[in-house]
Amino acid sequence: MIDSRPPLERLRDRVATLGAPLCLGIDPRPDALPESLPANVSGVESFARGLVEAAAGSAAAVKLNTAYFEAFGSAGWAALERVRADVPPGPLIILDAKRGDIGPSAERYAEALMGRLAADGVTLQPYLGEDAIEPFLAFPGRLVYLLVRTSNPSAGQLQDLLVEGRPLATVVARWADERWPDGRVGLVVGATAPGELRRLREEVPGPAFLVPGVGAQGGELATALVCCHGTRAPGLINLSRAIAERAIGRPDWQRAAGKAALGWLDDMRGAGATLGATT
Amino acid sequence: MIDSRPPLERLRDRVATLGAPLCLGIDPRPDALPESLPANVSGVESFARGLVEAAAGSAAAVKLNTAYFEAFGSAGWAALERVRADVPPGPLIILDAKRGDIGPSAERYAEALMGRLAADGVTLQPYLGEDAIEPFLAFPGRLVYLLVRTSNPSAGQLQDLLVEGRPLATVVARWADERWPDGRVGLVVGATAPGELRRLREEVPGPAFLVPGVGAQGGELATALVCCHGTRAPGLINLSRAIAERAIGRPDWQRAAGKAALGWLDDMRGAGATLGATT
Repeated sequence: MIDSRPPLERLRDRVATLGAPLCLGIDPRPDALPESLPANVSGVESFARGLVEAAAGSAAAVKLNTAYFEAFGSAGWAALERVRADVPPGPLIILDAKRGDIGPSAERYAEALMGRLAADGVTLQPYLGEDAIEPFLAFPGRLVYLLVRTSNPSAGQLQDLLVEGRPLATVVARWADERWPDGRVGLVVGATAPGELRRLREEVPGPAFLVPGVGAQGGELATALVCCHGTRAPGLINLSRAIAERAIGRPDWQRAAGKAALGWLDDMRGAGATLGATT
Repeated sequence: MIDSRPPLERLRDRVATLGAPLCLGIDPRPDALPESLPANVSGVESFARGLVEAAAGSAAAVKLNTAYFEAFGSAGWAALERVRADVPPGPLIILDAKRGDIGPSAERYAEALMGRLAADGVTLQPYLGEDAIEPFLAFPGRLVYLLVRTSNPSAGQLQDLLVEGRPLATVVARWADERWPDGRVGLVVGATAPGELRRLREEVPGPAFLVPGVGAQGGELATALVCCHGTRAPGLINLSRAIAERAIGRPDWQRAAGKAALGWLDDMRGAGATLGATT
Protein backbone atom coordinates (compact mmCIF):
# COMPACT_ATOMS: atom_id res chain seq x y z
CA MET A 1 0.00 0.00 0.00
CA ILE A 2 1.36 3.39 -0.98
CA ASP A 3 1.54 5.88 1.87
CA SER A 4 0.50 9.16 0.28
CA ARG A 5 1.22 11.43 3.27
CA PRO A 6 3.95 14.08 2.85
CA PRO A 7 7.50 12.70 3.38
CA LEU A 8 8.05 14.76 6.53
CA GLU A 9 4.98 13.29 8.20
CA ARG A 10 5.96 9.75 7.17
CA LEU A 11 9.48 10.31 8.48
CA ARG A 12 8.22 11.57 11.82
CA ASP A 13 6.05 8.48 12.26
CA ARG A 14 8.75 6.11 11.10
CA VAL A 15 11.40 7.49 13.45
CA ALA A 16 8.91 7.35 16.34
CA THR A 17 7.86 3.78 15.52
CA LEU A 18 11.42 2.48 15.13
CA GLY A 19 12.66 4.52 18.07
CA ALA A 20 15.79 5.45 16.10
CA PRO A 21 16.73 7.68 13.15
CA LEU A 22 18.72 5.07 11.21
CA CYS A 23 19.37 5.90 7.55
CA LEU A 24 20.60 2.93 5.50
CA GLY A 25 23.24 4.21 3.06
CA ILE A 26 23.74 2.23 -0.15
CA ASP A 27 27.15 2.94 -1.79
CA PRO A 28 28.17 -0.34 -3.44
CA ARG A 29 31.61 -0.57 -5.12
CA PRO A 30 32.32 -3.46 -7.50
CA ASP A 31 35.61 -4.12 -5.66
CA ALA A 32 33.88 -4.45 -2.28
CA LEU A 33 31.12 -7.00 -2.74
CA PRO A 34 30.37 -10.37 -1.15
CA GLU A 35 32.37 -13.15 -2.85
CA SER A 36 29.33 -14.74 -4.43
CA LEU A 37 28.56 -11.61 -6.49
CA PRO A 38 30.29 -10.60 -9.75
CA ALA A 39 32.46 -7.45 -9.72
CA ASN A 40 30.27 -5.59 -12.20
CA VAL A 41 27.02 -3.63 -12.46
CA SER A 42 24.96 -6.74 -11.88
CA GLY A 43 26.89 -7.48 -8.66
CA VAL A 44 26.43 -3.91 -7.51
CA GLU A 45 22.69 -4.13 -8.16
CA SER A 46 22.39 -7.47 -6.33
CA PHE A 47 24.30 -6.15 -3.32
CA ALA A 48 22.18 -2.98 -3.20
CA ARG A 49 18.97 -5.03 -3.39
CA GLY A 50 20.22 -7.51 -0.81
CA LEU A 51 21.13 -4.75 1.65
CA VAL A 52 17.74 -3.08 1.19
CA GLU A 53 15.87 -6.39 1.63
CA ALA A 54 17.84 -7.28 4.73
CA ALA A 55 18.04 -3.91 6.48
CA ALA A 56 15.34 -1.49 5.24
CA GLY A 57 13.00 -2.78 7.94
CA SER A 58 15.33 -1.27 10.55
CA ALA A 59 15.69 2.01 8.67
CA ALA A 60 13.77 5.27 8.77
CA ALA A 61 15.23 6.10 5.34
CA VAL A 62 17.20 4.40 2.57
CA LYS A 63 19.84 6.64 0.99
CA LEU A 64 21.03 5.61 -2.46
CA ASN A 65 24.22 7.37 -3.63
CA THR A 66 23.90 7.95 -7.39
CA ALA A 67 27.71 7.92 -7.92
CA TYR A 68 27.93 4.15 -7.41
CA PHE A 69 25.34 3.49 -10.10
CA GLU A 70 26.37 6.28 -12.49
CA ALA A 71 29.87 4.72 -12.58
CA PHE A 72 28.31 2.14 -14.94
CA GLY A 73 26.67 4.73 -17.20
CA SER A 74 23.19 4.01 -18.57
CA ALA A 75 23.36 0.40 -17.33
CA GLY A 76 24.05 1.71 -13.83
CA TRP A 77 21.19 4.17 -14.04
CA ALA A 78 18.88 1.34 -15.13
CA ALA A 79 20.03 -0.63 -12.07
CA LEU A 80 19.35 2.39 -9.84
CA GLU A 81 15.83 2.66 -11.29
CA ARG A 82 15.12 -1.01 -10.51
CA VAL A 83 16.60 -0.86 -7.00
CA ARG A 84 14.63 2.28 -6.19
CA ALA A 85 11.37 0.82 -7.54
CA ASP A 86 11.73 -2.26 -5.34
CA VAL A 87 12.41 -0.55 -2.01
CA PRO A 88 9.56 -1.84 0.20
CA PRO A 89 7.05 0.65 1.64
CA GLY A 90 8.07 2.22 4.95
CA PRO A 91 11.42 4.00 4.79
CA LEU A 92 11.85 7.30 2.98
CA ILE A 93 13.93 7.22 -0.20
CA ILE A 94 16.74 9.75 -0.27
CA LEU A 95 18.81 10.11 -3.42
CA ASP A 96 22.28 11.24 -2.40
CA ALA A 97 23.06 13.01 -5.67
CA LYS A 98 24.72 16.23 -4.45
CA ARG A 99 23.58 18.02 -7.59
CA GLY A 100 23.83 21.79 -8.06
CA ASP A 101 23.21 23.75 -11.26
CA ILE A 102 21.63 27.00 -12.46
CA GLY A 103 17.81 27.21 -12.55
CA PRO A 104 16.91 25.71 -15.95
CA SER A 105 19.37 22.83 -15.43
CA ALA A 106 18.29 22.32 -11.81
CA GLU A 107 14.74 21.82 -13.15
CA ARG A 108 16.01 18.91 -15.25
CA TYR A 109 17.85 17.35 -12.30
CA ALA A 110 14.68 17.74 -10.22
CA GLU A 111 12.73 15.98 -13.00
CA ALA A 112 15.30 13.14 -12.92
CA LEU A 113 15.41 12.70 -9.15
CA MET A 114 12.06 13.93 -7.77
CA GLY A 115 10.11 13.14 -10.96
CA ARG A 116 11.27 9.89 -12.58
CA LEU A 117 12.93 8.35 -9.54
CA ALA A 118 10.25 9.70 -7.16
CA ALA A 119 12.71 10.49 -4.36
CA ASP A 120 11.28 11.66 -1.05
CA GLY A 121 14.44 13.70 -0.56
CA VAL A 122 17.70 14.59 -2.29
CA THR A 123 21.06 15.98 -1.22
CA LEU A 124 22.11 19.23 -2.93
CA GLN A 125 25.08 21.61 -3.14
CA PRO A 126 24.71 25.13 -1.70
CA TYR A 127 27.35 26.97 -3.78
CA LEU A 128 24.98 28.35 -6.48
CA GLY A 129 22.41 29.73 -4.04
CA GLU A 130 18.65 29.27 -4.09
CA ASP A 131 18.20 28.93 -7.89
CA ALA A 132 19.81 25.50 -7.62
CA ILE A 133 17.46 24.42 -4.79
CA GLU A 134 13.98 25.80 -5.54
CA PRO A 135 13.13 23.49 -8.50
CA PHE A 136 13.40 20.50 -6.15
CA LEU A 137 11.09 22.11 -3.57
CA ALA A 138 8.58 22.77 -6.35
CA PHE A 139 7.68 19.07 -5.95
CA PRO A 140 5.14 19.42 -3.11
CA GLY A 141 6.22 18.06 0.25
CA ARG A 142 9.54 16.65 -0.92
CA LEU A 143 12.68 17.17 1.16
CA VAL A 144 16.10 18.63 0.41
CA TYR A 145 19.27 18.07 2.44
CA LEU A 146 21.78 20.81 1.76
CA LEU A 147 25.51 20.10 2.17
CA VAL A 148 26.73 22.22 5.07
CA ARG A 149 29.63 20.46 6.88
CA THR A 150 30.69 17.31 5.06
CA SER A 151 32.49 14.30 6.56
CA ASN A 152 35.56 14.17 4.25
CA PRO A 153 39.13 15.13 5.28
CA SER A 154 39.25 18.26 3.07
CA ALA A 155 35.79 19.49 4.14
CA GLY A 156 37.25 22.41 6.04
CA GLN A 157 39.15 23.93 3.09
CA LEU A 158 36.08 25.98 2.17
CA GLN A 159 33.59 25.14 4.90
CA ASP A 160 35.77 26.46 7.76
CA LEU A 161 36.62 29.79 6.06
CA LEU A 162 35.57 32.65 8.31
CA VAL A 163 32.83 34.96 7.07
CA GLU A 164 32.51 37.86 9.52
CA GLY A 165 33.95 35.68 12.24
CA ARG A 166 31.79 32.62 11.58
CA PRO A 167 32.72 29.48 9.59
CA LEU A 168 31.16 29.38 6.10
CA ALA A 169 29.32 26.17 7.11
CA THR A 170 27.52 28.11 9.84
CA VAL A 171 26.64 30.93 7.47
CA VAL A 172 25.21 28.42 4.98
CA ALA A 173 23.24 26.72 7.77
CA ARG A 174 21.75 30.01 8.98
CA TRP A 175 20.97 31.11 5.44
CA ALA A 176 19.12 27.86 4.66
CA ASP A 177 17.31 28.00 8.00
CA GLU A 178 16.03 31.53 7.34
CA ARG A 179 15.29 31.00 3.66
CA TRP A 180 13.28 27.78 4.10
CA PRO A 181 11.76 27.78 7.59
CA ASP A 182 9.12 25.08 6.94
CA GLY A 183 11.14 21.96 7.85
CA ARG A 184 11.55 20.70 4.28
CA VAL A 185 15.21 21.74 3.97
CA GLY A 186 17.55 19.77 6.20
CA LEU A 187 21.31 20.03 6.46
CA VAL A 188 24.07 17.48 5.89
CA VAL A 189 26.44 17.75 8.85
CA GLY A 190 29.13 15.10 9.33
CA ALA A 191 29.80 13.36 12.65
CA THR A 192 33.55 13.37 11.92
CA ALA A 193 33.79 16.92 13.31
CA PRO A 194 31.71 16.53 16.51
CA GLY A 195 32.57 20.03 17.75
CA GLU A 196 31.20 21.52 14.53
CA LEU A 197 28.15 19.28 14.76
CA ARG A 198 27.33 20.46 18.30
CA ARG A 199 28.02 24.11 17.46
CA LEU A 200 25.85 23.97 14.34
CA ARG A 201 22.98 22.44 16.31
CA GLU A 202 23.18 25.32 18.79
CA GLU A 203 23.25 27.89 15.95
CA VAL A 204 20.25 26.45 14.09
CA PRO A 205 17.90 24.46 16.32
CA GLY A 206 15.20 24.14 13.66
CA PRO A 207 16.27 22.05 10.68
CA ALA A 208 16.86 18.31 10.55
CA PHE A 209 20.46 17.15 10.21
CA LEU A 210 21.35 14.22 7.98
CA VAL A 211 24.52 12.99 9.69
CA PRO A 212 27.07 10.86 7.80
CA GLY A 213 30.40 9.73 9.22
CA VAL A 214 29.29 7.55 12.14
CA GLY A 215 30.87 4.07 12.18
CA ALA A 216 33.48 3.48 9.45
CA GLN A 217 34.44 7.17 9.33
CA GLY A 218 34.85 7.32 13.11
CA GLY A 219 32.16 9.78 14.19
CA GLU A 220 30.56 9.38 17.63
CA LEU A 221 27.07 7.91 17.74
CA ALA A 222 26.07 9.68 20.96
CA THR A 223 26.79 13.18 19.67
CA ALA A 224 25.03 12.40 16.39
CA LEU A 225 21.94 11.18 18.26
CA VAL A 226 21.78 14.28 20.44
CA CYS A 227 22.28 16.62 17.51
CA CYS A 228 20.48 15.16 14.50
CA HIS A 229 16.91 16.12 15.38
CA GLY A 230 15.72 19.66 14.71
CA THR A 231 12.79 21.31 16.43
CA ARG A 232 11.01 21.37 13.07
CA ALA A 233 11.91 17.97 11.64
CA PRO A 234 13.45 14.65 12.72
CA GLY A 235 17.06 14.03 11.71
CA LEU A 236 18.79 10.96 10.33
CA ILE A 237 22.06 9.17 11.08
CA ASN A 238 23.47 7.54 7.99
CA LEU A 239 25.27 4.19 8.14
CA SER A 240 26.76 2.78 4.95
CA ARG A 241 30.08 0.99 5.33
CA ALA A 242 29.29 0.21 8.99
CA ILE A 243 26.61 -2.17 7.72
CA ALA A 244 27.99 -3.22 4.31
CA GLU A 245 31.38 -4.18 5.71
CA ARG A 246 29.76 -6.54 8.21
CA ALA A 247 28.18 -8.37 5.27
CA ILE A 248 31.13 -8.59 2.86
CA GLY A 249 33.23 -11.73 3.33
CA ARG A 250 30.37 -13.79 4.77
CA PRO A 251 28.59 -16.50 2.78
CA ASP A 252 25.33 -15.54 4.56
CA TRP A 253 25.93 -11.86 3.82
CA GLN A 254 22.29 -10.78 3.76
CA ARG A 255 21.71 -12.23 7.20
CA ALA A 256 24.88 -10.51 8.44
CA ALA A 257 23.72 -7.15 7.03
CA GLY A 258 20.31 -7.51 8.63
CA LYS A 259 21.92 -8.37 11.96
CA ALA A 260 24.32 -5.40 11.72
CA ALA A 261 21.43 -3.02 11.05
CA LEU A 262 19.45 -4.44 13.97
CA GLY A 263 22.54 -4.05 16.17
CA TRP A 264 22.84 -0.36 15.26
CA LEU A 265 19.10 0.08 15.79
CA ASP A 266 19.47 -1.36 19.31
CA ASP A 267 22.53 0.83 20.01
CA MET A 268 20.59 3.91 18.91
CA ARG A 269 17.54 2.98 20.99
CA GLY A 270 19.76 2.35 23.99
CA ALA A 271 21.69 5.58 23.63
CA GLY A 272 18.47 7.46 22.92
CA ALA A 273 16.83 6.03 26.07
CA THR A 274 19.87 7.02 28.14
CA LEU A 275 19.87 10.48 26.66
CA GLY A 276 16.12 10.75 27.27
CA ALA A 277 16.63 9.77 30.92
CA THR A 278 19.37 12.31 31.55
CA THR A 279 18.06 15.36 29.68
CA MET B 1 41.97 9.57 -36.52
CA ILE B 2 42.18 9.81 -32.74
CA ASP B 3 44.36 12.66 -31.49
CA SER B 4 46.17 11.17 -28.49
CA ARG B 5 47.86 14.37 -27.31
CA PRO B 6 46.87 15.71 -23.84
CA PRO B 7 43.62 17.72 -23.88
CA LEU B 8 45.40 20.96 -22.96
CA GLU B 9 47.71 20.71 -25.97
CA ARG B 10 44.82 19.87 -28.28
CA LEU B 11 42.83 22.81 -26.92
CA ARG B 12 45.70 25.23 -27.44
CA ASP B 13 46.03 24.14 -31.08
CA ARG B 14 42.32 24.16 -31.70
CA VAL B 15 41.79 27.69 -30.32
CA ALA B 16 44.79 28.93 -32.35
CA THR B 17 43.52 27.27 -35.56
CA LEU B 18 39.95 28.52 -35.19
CA GLY B 19 41.09 31.93 -33.97
CA ALA B 20 38.36 31.89 -31.32
CA PRO B 21 37.59 30.09 -28.03
CA LEU B 22 34.02 29.08 -28.86
CA CYS B 23 32.52 26.35 -26.67
CA LEU B 24 29.32 24.84 -28.05
CA GLY B 25 26.95 24.18 -25.13
CA ILE B 26 24.37 21.43 -25.54
CA ASP B 27 21.45 21.79 -23.09
CA PRO B 28 18.40 20.46 -24.97
CA ARG B 29 14.98 20.68 -23.30
CA PRO B 30 12.10 18.63 -24.71
CA ASP B 31 9.89 21.74 -24.65
CA ALA B 32 12.36 23.77 -26.75
CA LEU B 33 13.07 21.68 -29.84
CA PRO B 34 12.61 22.26 -33.56
CA GLU B 35 9.01 21.44 -34.61
CA SER B 36 10.03 18.37 -36.61
CA LEU B 37 11.38 16.64 -33.50
CA PRO B 38 9.30 14.80 -30.85
CA ALA B 39 9.17 16.29 -27.33
CA ASN B 40 10.86 13.30 -25.72
CA VAL B 41 14.28 11.71 -25.17
CA SER B 42 14.58 10.83 -28.83
CA GLY B 43 13.91 14.45 -29.84
CA VAL B 44 16.47 15.66 -27.32
CA GLU B 45 19.05 13.23 -28.70
CA SER B 46 18.33 14.24 -32.31
CA PHE B 47 18.61 17.93 -31.49
CA ALA B 48 21.88 17.38 -29.61
CA ARG B 49 23.31 15.37 -32.50
CA GLY B 50 22.10 17.90 -35.05
CA LEU B 51 23.67 20.83 -33.17
CA VAL B 52 26.96 18.96 -32.85
CA GLU B 53 26.98 18.01 -36.54
CA ALA B 54 26.16 21.55 -37.63
CA ALA B 55 28.33 23.55 -35.24
CA ALA B 56 31.16 21.46 -33.78
CA GLY B 57 33.39 22.46 -36.69
CA SER B 58 33.30 26.05 -35.40
CA ALA B 59 33.93 25.02 -31.79
CA ALA B 60 37.08 24.56 -29.73
CA ALA B 61 35.04 22.46 -27.32
CA VAL B 62 31.62 20.82 -27.07
CA LYS B 63 30.05 21.04 -23.62
CA LEU B 64 27.29 18.52 -22.87
CA ASN B 65 25.23 19.29 -19.76
CA THR B 66 24.35 15.98 -18.10
CA ALA B 67 21.16 17.40 -16.52
CA TYR B 68 19.32 17.48 -19.85
CA PHE B 69 20.00 13.80 -20.47
CA GLU B 70 19.65 12.61 -16.87
CA ALA B 71 16.12 14.05 -16.86
CA PHE B 72 15.17 10.92 -18.88
CA GLY B 73 16.88 8.48 -16.50
CA SER B 74 18.73 5.51 -17.97
CA ALA B 75 17.29 6.21 -21.44
CA GLY B 76 18.72 9.73 -21.26
CA TRP B 77 22.09 8.44 -20.12
CA ALA B 78 22.11 6.01 -23.06
CA ALA B 79 21.39 8.96 -25.38
CA LEU B 80 24.25 10.92 -23.79
CA GLU B 81 26.59 7.98 -24.38
CA ARG B 82 25.64 7.84 -28.07
CA VAL B 83 25.87 11.62 -28.58
CA ARG B 84 29.27 11.75 -26.90
CA ALA B 85 30.59 8.78 -28.93
CA ASP B 86 29.61 10.47 -32.19
CA VAL B 87 31.18 13.90 -31.60
CA PRO B 88 33.60 14.22 -34.53
CA PRO B 89 37.36 14.53 -33.85
CA GLY B 90 38.57 18.09 -33.24
CA PRO B 91 36.78 19.82 -30.37
CA LEU B 92 37.39 18.88 -26.76
CA ILE B 93 34.51 17.16 -24.97
CA ILE B 94 33.53 18.79 -21.68
CA LEU B 95 30.89 17.15 -19.52
CA ASP B 96 29.13 19.87 -17.58
CA ALA B 97 28.16 17.66 -14.66
CA LYS B 98 28.89 19.94 -11.67
CA ARG B 99 29.47 16.89 -9.48
CA GLY B 100 30.98 17.07 -6.00
CA ASP B 101 31.22 14.25 -3.46
CA ILE B 102 33.61 12.84 -0.83
CA GLY B 103 36.67 10.90 -2.08
CA PRO B 104 35.35 7.34 -2.55
CA SER B 105 32.21 8.65 -4.27
CA ALA B 106 34.16 11.17 -6.36
CA GLU B 107 36.18 8.20 -7.66
CA ARG B 108 32.97 6.66 -8.97
CA TYR B 109 31.88 9.91 -10.63
CA ALA B 110 35.34 10.19 -12.21
CA GLU B 111 34.94 6.63 -13.50
CA ALA B 112 31.56 7.61 -15.02
CA LEU B 113 32.69 10.85 -16.65
CA MET B 114 36.44 10.54 -17.31
CA GLY B 115 36.38 6.73 -17.65
CA ARG B 116 33.25 5.51 -19.43
CA LEU B 117 32.33 8.75 -21.19
CA ALA B 118 35.99 9.65 -21.85
CA ALA B 119 35.51 13.37 -21.18
CA ASP B 120 38.47 15.66 -21.84
CA GLY B 121 37.19 17.91 -19.06
CA VAL B 122 34.41 18.13 -16.47
CA THR B 123 32.87 20.88 -14.37
CA LEU B 124 32.99 20.32 -10.59
CA GLN B 125 31.77 21.89 -7.34
CA PRO B 126 34.34 23.39 -4.94
CA TYR B 127 32.38 23.11 -1.67
CA LEU B 128 33.91 19.81 -0.45
CA GLY B 129 37.52 20.80 -1.07
CA GLU B 130 40.22 18.85 -2.87
CA ASP B 131 38.97 15.32 -2.03
CA ALA B 132 36.12 15.92 -4.47
CA ILE B 133 38.50 17.07 -7.25
CA GLU B 134 41.62 14.87 -7.13
CA PRO B 135 40.03 11.62 -8.43
CA PHE B 136 39.24 13.41 -11.70
CA LEU B 137 42.82 14.70 -12.07
CA ALA B 138 44.07 11.14 -11.50
CA PHE B 139 43.09 10.60 -15.16
CA PRO B 140 46.33 11.81 -16.79
CA GLY B 141 46.06 15.07 -18.69
CA ARG B 142 42.33 15.53 -18.23
CA LEU B 143 40.92 18.92 -17.31
CA VAL B 144 38.68 20.16 -14.52
CA TYR B 145 36.69 23.40 -14.48
CA LEU B 146 35.81 24.38 -10.94
CA LEU B 147 32.69 26.49 -10.27
CA VAL B 148 33.87 29.87 -8.98
CA ARG B 149 31.42 32.63 -10.01
CA THR B 150 28.35 31.19 -11.71
CA SER B 151 26.02 32.99 -14.13
CA ASN B 152 22.69 32.52 -12.30
CA PRO B 153 20.74 35.26 -10.49
CA SER B 154 21.36 33.82 -6.99
CA ALA B 155 25.10 33.18 -7.59
CA GLY B 156 26.10 35.92 -5.17
CA GLN B 157 24.23 34.51 -2.16
CA LEU B 158 27.31 32.45 -1.22
CA GLN B 159 29.88 33.46 -3.82
CA ASP B 160 29.90 37.16 -2.83
CA LEU B 161 30.24 36.54 0.94
CA LEU B 162 33.32 38.31 2.23
CA VAL B 163 36.14 36.18 3.61
CA GLU B 164 38.76 38.47 5.14
CA GLY B 165 37.59 41.26 2.88
CA ARG B 166 37.51 39.24 -0.35
CA PRO B 167 34.48 37.60 -2.01
CA LEU B 168 34.33 33.83 -1.51
CA ALA B 169 34.57 33.39 -5.30
CA THR B 170 37.98 35.08 -5.24
CA VAL B 171 39.16 32.97 -2.33
CA VAL B 172 38.09 29.81 -4.19
CA ALA B 173 39.86 31.01 -7.36
CA ARG B 174 43.11 31.73 -5.49
CA TRP B 175 42.93 28.43 -3.63
CA ALA B 176 42.48 26.45 -6.88
CA ASP B 177 45.23 28.45 -8.57
CA GLU B 178 47.72 27.69 -5.80
CA ARG B 179 46.64 24.09 -5.28
CA TRP B 180 46.81 23.07 -8.97
CA PRO B 181 49.30 25.33 -10.75
CA ASP B 182 49.79 23.14 -13.83
CA GLY B 183 47.03 24.53 -16.06
CA ARG B 184 44.74 21.51 -15.75
CA VAL B 185 42.26 23.17 -13.39
CA GLY B 186 40.28 26.00 -14.96
CA LEU B 187 37.56 28.11 -13.39
CA VAL B 188 33.93 28.66 -14.35
CA VAL B 189 33.33 32.42 -14.23
CA GLY B 190 30.09 33.84 -15.66
CA ALA B 191 29.97 36.81 -18.03
CA THR B 192 26.78 38.04 -16.35
CA ALA B 193 28.87 39.80 -13.68
CA PRO B 194 31.51 41.48 -15.89
CA GLY B 195 33.04 43.40 -12.97
CA GLU B 196 33.61 40.15 -11.10
CA LEU B 197 34.98 38.56 -14.27
CA ARG B 198 37.57 41.32 -14.76
CA ARG B 199 38.51 41.39 -11.10
CA LEU B 200 38.94 37.62 -10.96
CA ARG B 201 41.19 37.71 -14.04
CA GLU B 202 43.40 40.29 -12.33
CA GLU B 203 43.54 38.22 -9.14
CA VAL B 204 44.46 34.95 -10.86
CA PRO B 205 46.16 35.46 -14.23
CA GLY B 206 47.12 31.79 -14.61
CA PRO B 207 44.10 29.50 -14.99
CA ALA B 208 41.75 29.23 -17.94
CA PHE B 209 38.23 30.57 -17.47
CA LEU B 210 35.25 28.73 -18.89
CA VAL B 211 32.81 31.62 -19.35
CA PRO B 212 29.05 30.98 -19.56
CA GLY B 213 26.41 33.71 -19.76
CA VAL B 214 27.32 35.42 -23.05
CA GLY B 215 24.38 35.79 -25.46
CA ALA B 216 21.03 34.67 -24.04
CA GLN B 217 22.03 35.47 -20.45
CA GLY B 218 23.20 38.97 -21.46
CA GLY B 219 26.93 38.86 -20.75
CA GLU B 220 29.30 40.99 -22.87
CA LEU B 221 31.35 39.19 -25.49
CA ALA B 222 34.23 41.67 -25.45
CA THR B 223 34.91 41.35 -21.72
CA ALA B 224 34.65 37.57 -21.94
CA LEU B 225 37.18 37.50 -24.79
CA VAL B 226 39.68 39.66 -22.92
CA CYS B 227 39.30 37.69 -19.71
CA CYS B 228 38.87 34.03 -20.63
CA HIS B 229 42.47 33.14 -21.46
CA GLY B 230 44.90 32.41 -18.65
CA THR B 231 48.65 32.65 -18.90
CA ARG B 232 48.80 28.89 -18.39
CA ALA B 233 45.87 27.69 -20.50
CA PRO B 234 43.45 28.97 -23.13
CA GLY B 235 39.94 29.82 -21.96
CA LEU B 236 36.53 29.08 -23.47
CA ILE B 237 33.38 31.11 -24.04
CA ASN B 238 30.29 28.95 -23.86
CA LEU B 239 27.30 29.55 -26.11
CA SER B 240 24.23 27.37 -25.68
CA ARG B 241 20.89 29.11 -26.08
CA ALA B 242 22.50 31.78 -28.30
CA ILE B 243 22.94 29.07 -30.94
CA ALA B 244 20.06 26.68 -30.16
CA GLU B 245 17.44 29.45 -30.17
CA ARG B 246 18.50 30.50 -33.65
CA ALA B 247 17.73 26.97 -34.83
CA ILE B 248 14.39 26.31 -33.09
CA GLY B 249 11.39 27.36 -35.16
CA ARG B 250 13.15 26.92 -38.51
CA PRO B 251 12.47 23.99 -40.82
CA ASP B 252 16.17 24.05 -41.84
CA TRP B 253 17.22 24.17 -38.20
CA GLN B 254 20.57 22.47 -38.62
CA ARG B 255 21.64 24.95 -41.26
CA ALA B 256 20.47 27.81 -39.01
CA ALA B 257 22.47 26.45 -36.08
CA GLY B 258 25.59 26.10 -38.23
CA LYS B 259 25.16 29.65 -39.47
CA ALA B 260 24.66 31.01 -35.94
CA ALA B 261 27.84 29.27 -34.75
CA LEU B 262 29.78 30.64 -37.71
CA GLY B 263 28.40 34.11 -36.98
CA TRP B 264 29.63 33.93 -33.38
CA LEU B 265 32.98 32.59 -34.58
CA ASP B 266 33.32 35.62 -36.87
CA ASP B 267 32.29 38.01 -34.08
CA MET B 268 34.89 36.48 -31.79
CA ARG B 269 37.61 36.64 -34.43
CA GLY B 270 36.70 40.25 -35.18
CA ALA B 271 36.64 41.31 -31.54
CA GLY B 272 39.81 39.33 -30.88
CA ALA B 273 41.60 41.02 -33.80
CA THR B 274 40.53 44.44 -32.53
CA LEU B 275 41.66 43.56 -29.04
CA GLY B 276 44.94 42.24 -30.42
CA ALA B 277 45.48 45.51 -32.33
CA THR B 278 44.81 47.70 -29.32
CA THR B 279 46.60 45.81 -26.56
